[in-house]
Amino acid sequence: MNPTSPAIILDHPQMGENIGAAARAMLNFGFHDLRLVAPRDGWPNQSAIDMSSGALDMMPPVQVFETLPAAIKDLHHVYATTARRRDMVKPVFTPRGAAADAQARLQSGQKTGLVFGRERTGLENDDLALCQAIITVPTNPEFSSINLAQSVLLVAYEWQMTQDNTPAYDLPAGSSFPAENAQLMELFERLENELETHNFFRSAGLKPTMVRNIRTLLTRAQMTDQEVRTFHGIISALTGAKKP
Amino acid sequence: MNPTSPAIILDHPQMGENIGAAARAMLNFGFHDLRLVAPRDGWPNQSAIDMSSGALDMMPPVQVFETLPAAIKDLHHVYATTARRRDMVKPVFTPRGAAADAQARLQSGQKTGLVFGRERTGLENDDLALCQAIITVPTNPEFSSINLAQSVLLVAYEWQMTQDNTPAYDLPAGSSFPAENAQLMELFERLENELETHNFFRSAGLKPTMVRNIRTLLTRAQMTDQEVRTFHGIISALTGAKKP
Repeated sequence: MNPTSPAIILDHPQMGENIGAAARAMLNFGFHDLRLVAPRDGWPNQSAIDMSSGALDMMPPVQVFETLPAAIKDLHHVYATTARRRDMVKPVFTPRGAAADAQARLQSGQKTGLVFGRERTGLENDDLALCQAIITVPTNPEFSSINLAQSVLLVAYEWQMTQDNTPAYDLPAGSSFPAENAQLMELFERLENELETHNFFRSAGLKPTMVRNIRTLLTRAQMTDQEVRTFHGIISALTGAKKP
Repeated sequence: MNPTSPAIILDHPQMGENIGAAARAMLNFGFHDLRLVAPRDGWPNQSAIDMSSGALDMMPPVQVFETLPAAIKDLHHVYATTARRRDMVKPVFTPRGAAADAQARLQSGQKTGLVFGRERTGLENDDLALCQAIITVPTNPEFSSINLAQSVLLVAYEWQMTQDNTPAYDLPAGSSFPAENAQLMELFERLENELETHNFFRSAGLKPTMVRNIRTLLTRAQMTDQEVRTFHGIISALTGAKKP
């Protein structure tokens, strides 16, 4: 099977909980290839299974390796995540930059991987020297240490976002539909007539401005046709009248 | 103090560990205002403190409220996170879209908040009805349930990215500096002369192409001046010669 997303490689992970949370985060964003290098507590690990909320059961079996070179040998381009700046002349990506780069490589048939170091100390420089690039998450400099599974989540999320078409803003009308402007005009005119009858407009001079302000508010609400009917009902209830 | 980032409101959180992990994720991206509505196990909570890795100690005291309306009463615009589609005509943002929207509101002086429901069931529709907008993370439809603290991380991360200037790709030269092209030309010519002497170029007709390929590889490596010196040393060692 050709990969559809990068492999995730956890190097010397210590806490089973983090492995499980990382697996859950991976599957949240469509990643399936989890590899472990020398997990401290061995494998399988019940804490990991519990924390994965079923993700580990839905993914192919986790592969376990003794060394990082063994875990990455079939991959063409490997990104190592690190929080600390190293004195190493190596490309440094943000998670977003790395996701775009990895997506381009996948399109050309390359297999990529994302490597994460152990919780306390991260990756060693000898490990970094083997990786083609570095990913550093731009964090608060006063509190920069991200949980292992949270790091996995961010890079997996950015990968998913490279291929996601969800609009940044949407106003789904659900089972109803936006009202047509003719319905809105009818509602506006009825409301304004009722307000006129009830002496809402203090003076004829102020009325045009007040009408514009009310129409602006009601237009901004982007009512559905059901909501226009509800609004007619509110007017009827408050005036004791039926819709004419 | 004027807010510099949205408030995070956890509604009826169940696990102290998730509150602590959420606090850590908040501070990773410069959030400071954590509010809890009726936390199941009360407050303070030792599991939360342990999981926060010190974040709770570095943030202002967590505020605890009995109801969601009390927790959001000083805010102007509140985004509710939900995984499930509701039959409610309300703006739906991606985390990225919401971050841009909230950033624009902050610039105009509005106080904003991000609300997260309880772990098992999320927010109730009566709570959602009070919020100005919805955030839904675009996840794998076959495994969409994100951990509470992971949701907090994603929206906090996207907020931080609206104001982050880190280049998506960088090649920091560390304590060294990229080699000047004159150094590279000198290296290329020395290497090509040595290869000529050692009969590397099988025929005069092939030589121009082979030279171009080697120069392309070495140019792509973007060597530093230290690395050019190292490469001269490699040539000297392999030929048994000194740099001329």
